[in-house]
Amino acid sequence: MSNNLLKGKRGIIFGALDENSIAWKVALKANEQGASFTLTNAPIALRMGAINQLAEQCGAEVIPADATSVEDLENLFTKSQEVLGGKLDFVLHSIGMSPNVRKNKEYGDLNYDWMLKTMDISAISFHKVMAVAEKQEAMNEWGSILALTYIAAQRTFPDYSDMAQAKAMLESIARSYGERFARLKKVRVNTISQSPTMTTAGSGVGGFDVFMDYAEKMSPLGNASAESCADYCISMFSDLTKMVTMQNLMHDGGFSSSGITQDIIDQMTK
Amino acid sequence: MSNNLLKGKRGIIFGALDENSIAWKVALKANEQGASFTLTNAPIALRMGAINQLAEQCGAEVIPADATSVEDLENLFTKSQEVLGGKLDFVLHSIGMSPNVRKNKEYGDLNYDWMLKTMDISAISFHKVMAVAEKQEAMNEWGSILALTYIAAQRTFPDYSDMAQAKAMLESIARSYGERFARLKKVRVNTISQSPTMTTAGSGVGGFDVFMDYAEKMSPLGNASAESCADYCISMFSDLTKMVTMQNLMHDGGFSSSGITQDIIDQMTK
Amino acid sequence: MSNNLLKGKRGIIFGALDENSIAWKVALKANEQGASFTLTNAPIALRMGAINQLAEQCGAEVIPADATSVEDLENLFTKSQEVLGGKLDFVLHSIGMSPNVRKNKEYGDLNYDWMLKTMDISAISFHKVMAVAEKQEAMNEWGSILALTYIAAQRTFPDYSDMAQAKAMLESIARSYGERFARLKKVRVNTISQSPTMTTAGSGVGGFDVFMDYAEKMSPLGNASAESCADYCISMFSDLTKMVTMQNLMHDGGFSSSGITQDIIDQMTK
Amino acid sequence: MSNNLLKGKRGIIFGALDENSIAWKVALKANEQGASFTLTNAPIALRMGAINQLAEQCGAEVIPADATSVEDLENLFTKSQEVLGGKLDFVLHSIGMSPNVRKNKEYGDLNYDWMLKTMDISAISFHKVMAVAEKQEAMNEWGSILALTYIAAQRTFPDYSDMAQAKAMLESIARSYGERFARLKKVRVNTISQSPTMTTAGSGVGGFDVFMDYAEKMSPLGNASAESCADYCISMFSDLTKMVTMQNLMHDGGFSSSGITQDIIDQMTK
Repeated sequence: MSNNLLKGKRGIIFGALDENSIAWKVALKANEQGASFTLTNAPIALRMGAINQLAEQCGAEVIPADATSVEDLENLFTKSQEVLGGKLDFVLHSIGMSPNVRKNKEYGDLNYDWMLKTMDISAISFHKVMAVAEKQEAMNEWGSILALTYIAAQRTFPDYSDMAQAKAMLESIARSYGERFARLKKVRVNTISQSPTMTTAGSGVGGFDVFMDYAEKMSPLGNASAESCADYCISMFSDLTKMVTMQNLMHDGGFSSSGITQDIIDQMTK
Repeated sequence: MSNNLLKGKRGIIFGALDENSIAWKVALKANEQGASFTLTNAPIALRMGAINQLAEQCGAEVIPADATSVEDLENLFTKSQEVLGGKLDFVLHSIGMSPNVRKNKEYGDLNYDWMLKTMDISAISFHKVMAVAEKQEAMNEWGSILALTYIAAQRTFPDYSDMAQAKAMLESIARSYGERFARLKKVRVNTISQSPTMTTAGSGVGGFDVFMDYAEKMSPLGNASAESCADYCISMFSDLTKMVTMQNLMHDGGFSSSGITQDIIDQMTK
Repeated sequence: MSNNLLKGKRGIIFGALDENSIAWKVALKANEQGASFTLTNAPIALRMGAINQLAEQCGAEVIPADATSVEDLENLFTKSQEVLGGKLDFVLHSIGMSPNVRKNKEYGDLNYDWMLKTMDISAISFHKVMAVAEKQEAMNEWGSILALTYIAAQRTFPDYSDMAQAKAMLESIARSYGERFARLKKVRVNTISQSPTMTTAGSGVGGFDVFMDYAEKMSPLGNASAESCADYCISMFSDLTKMVTMQNLMHDGGFSSSGITQDIIDQMTK
Repeated sequence: MSNNLLKGKRGIIFGALDENSIAWKVALKANEQGASFTLTNAPIALRMGAINQLAEQCGAEVIPADATSVEDLENLFTKSQEVLGGKLDFVLHSIGMSPNVRKNKEYGDLNYDWMLKTMDISAISFHKVMAVAEKQEAMNEWGSILALTYIAAQRTFPDYSDMAQAKAMLESIARSYGERFARLKKVRVNTISQSPTMTTAGSGVGGFDVFMDYAEKMSPLGNASAESCADYCISMFSDLTKMVTMQNLMHDGGFSSSGITQDIIDQMTK
C-alpha cells in the first residue's frame, strides 16, 4: 500500500542481486511509495540478469558500477542524475564481501591482501560513494544515505571473520561522513544493523542456520525479515526522520538488548 | 500532509501540556495521519485548560489521569478503548518531573523522598502504563509504545540532577517491558532520546539556554525541533518500524556521535 | 601475595555477608595489600555473625549500618575515620536486594512500593553513601569509590526483574556523582559489572544455574569468579587507575562483547 | 615505586619513539615492576636513536620490526623469546599513522591507497602481531595484549580523519582476536582509549591544542597524562585483571561520560 512517502524523491539503490536481497525489496517499496531511482551492482553480479526483471517492474534504469571504482561511481552518479532529472534524495548501500570468508580462511590465518579487499569492497566503497556524491553536488538538502550493517561490528560471531572489521569500519565511515555531510548539505547518514537474513549473500556465511535459529530465539520479536528491513529503510528515506543522523539503528526484533530469553533457556535445558 | 500512515490506528497520548509540548505536536500529526486517540494528563496540568483546544482540533477526548496512580490508569485505558471503539495500537509517554530540580536542590544534597517521587513520576509511571495495558489486554498485536528520554541517561549534564537517574530507569523499563510485551503480544517498546527542546517543561531546567546553544553547535544537523520529534514518533507508530524494539533511538541531529565540531572550536577560540 | 598496592590506604567495605561474598574477598585482599578498613552491613545481615570472623582476620572493626539510612551512614563515616585515624581512600558498595524478586512477583505484576524499596536499597543507597562522604569531607583526593553491578542494566535477563532498573540507576548515579566528586575532590567513581556469581545473594535469583551455564559458555574466558572480581577491585582502588572515572567496567570473561560462541552452537545443535 | 606487579613476566613493547611516548613510559614502569621485555619500532623510527637510551635504562634489547610485515614480526617474536628466555606474558601495541592526516588531505578527498595504508599500519598490524604470536605459541596462558586507541572510534573529531576508521577497526580486531585467543590460550586482549595526549605522534593531528583544552574542560578529572596511562597499562598486564577481555577501556578522566561541564559553560558564556 502506498503512502506516497517518497513521492518526488530520487535515489540510487546498490546491491539488488535477486529477489532475496534486502535492496531488491527496498526497490519495490520505494517504487510503491512514489520514488524514482536507478539500480546498480557490480558488472559481474549483473551478468546473472535477475536485476533486469526488477528494473522493469520499477521503471528503473540499471547502471553497472564496481563500487570500489571511483570512476565507475562518477559515471553512476552523473548518469543517475541525468536519467532521473535532478539531484538525489536517497542512496542505499547494501554491499559486502570478504574473500577470506568465501575461501574459508581461519581468522587466525587471514590473507591480508584479501583483508584489504574486504575493507575496500564492504566499507571504503561507502566513503567513495559519498565523496563522489559530494563532489558532484549530487545530493539535495535533507537527503538520506543508508548502509546495511550487522551487530558483528559490536560483538563477536566467530564465522563472520574480517567482515566484523569491515562493518565496524563502515559504521565509523557513516559517523565521519555523516558529520561532514550534515554540516555541508544537511544530508543525513545512518546504518541499519539488520537481523541475520537469509539472502543469497547471507547464506555464504558458515553455520548460518544455527546463527538464524539462535538469533530468532534471542530476539523477543523474532528475526526481522528482509521485507521489514525494507520498510524501515523507507522510513529512513522519508521526511519523518530528517534529524536522525550518524546513528547505527538496530533492526533486530530486540536481539541487541536481549541478554537471555526463556526460549534459549528451554533449548539449553532440553 | 497526510500519508495515512496511522489510518485506523488507536492510541493514547500522555503529556500534551501546551502547544510547545512534543506530545501536542504528536497529537496534531497523528490526527493528520488518520489516527484516533485520547489525550491525557495529570488533573493539575489539565486545569490550565489549553489541552481542550487541542482535543477539539483532533476530535479527541481528554481523560484525566495521574500517571503514578494505577487506578487512574485503569480508568484511562478502559475509557479509551470504549471511546475509540477497540484495542490500542500506540501509546506515547511524555512525562517527567523532578521536585529536586524544581526546587533547585544541589545534586549533593538531594531530598530522597523527592528523588523517589522523581522516579515514580518520570520512570515507574511508564511501567504502570504498560502493566495496566497488559492486564486489560488493551494493546493490539504489533502495537507500538514510546517514551521520550534524554541523553543525560548516558552522559552527565550537571543541572539535570536526579532526572538523569529517572531517564536511565525509564530506558531500562523500556527494555525490560519491551522484552515481555514482545514475547506476549508482539508489541514493541522504545524510547526516543530527543535534543534539548524548549518546551514548557524543558525550560524548567537551569542553564537551559547554554545547553541549547552548546547542543546546537555540537549537533551537525543542529538541534532537532519538537516538530521533527513528532514526525519521528509517527514513524515509530507506523507499520514501517514493526521490528524495532527495546531500543533507545537518538533523535538529536547527530549530537550523540559528535566528539567536537568546528563550531565549538570557533566558539572556544574566540 | 602482597604487592603493597593499598599500603596506607583506608576504606569502608559494604556487603560482606559470608565467605561467598565478593565483598568478603575484597576485604581479604585489601588487607593483604596493606589497607586498613571498616566492615559494614545491615544490622539484620550482621546477626548471622559470620562477618566477625572476617573482621578478626583483617583486624577490622564492624560498624552496623542500614545503607538506606542517612543517619546510620553518617555514624559509619564518622566512626570509620576515627577508628582508621584519618580520611578515606576507598569505598566498596556491594548492596542489592529486590523484594519483588525475593517474593517471586512477575515483572508484569510488580508491587510498586517494593519497587521503590528495591531502588532505595540497591541504588539510592549509593548516592547516600557518597553524599555523606562529601558532606563529612571524608574522602582523600584521588580516592576511589566502586559499586558492583550487572549487565542486566543494559540487556534483559527476565528473572532479574526490577533489579535491572536498580542497576541502571546505580550506574547512572556513578556517572552523576562521579562528575561531581571528580570536580570537587578528584575522587573517582566507577561500577564493575561482574559475571553472574554464585554468592548467597546471587543464588536468590531464579533459574540461576542456567544463567551461570549460559554465561560461562558465552564468555570466551569463562565466568569471572568472585575471587578475580576482588582482584579487579584492588586494581581500581590502587593508584594505577587514578584517571578512570564515571565508567562501567565489564568484568565478565568477555561475555558483553560476545555475540555467539562455538560452545553455544554445540549446545544448541546437540 | 615497585610493587613487583610484573615480576617474572616477559613482554614486547611496540611504539616507544621518545620520552613523550606512552609506550616509553610503559617500558619504564614495566621495568620498575619487575618485567623483562624487548622494545620494537619501525626501522625508520629507530634511526632517531632515542630508544637506545630507554633500552639501556631498562636492560632491554631493541629489535627493529615494521609492524605491517609478517616476516619482521616473526623475527621479532622468535628473537624476543630467545632473548627473554621463554614465552611472553604481555604485548603493548602503540602504533598509528595516517598518510592522509600527515599530508592534510580533506576527509572528503581522501587518497584511498593511503587510506588502506592507514588501516594496515594502525589496525591490521595488531591482527598480524596476534596471528604471529598465536602461530609461534608465543604467549603464556593468562597473558595480556593491549592496544592504544582513541574515542574517535565512537564519536567524530573532524581532524582525526581516517584514523577514526583505523581505531574502530583496531577495537574490532581486539574483540575478534580476543575471542579467539581467550578460547585457545586464555589470553586477554583489550584496548585502552586514552585522553588526547601530547606525544610526538599526537601533535601531528591538526588543531590539537584546542582538542586538548576542550577535552581537559570536558573531563571532570582533567585529561589523563601519558604517565597515568602507563600506570593503567601496568594494571592491565598484571594478574589483577585476568578476566577483563574484549573491552575498550576508557582512560580519560571521565570525558566519555561527560555531556557538558561547568567549565565548558563558563568558556561558552565568556
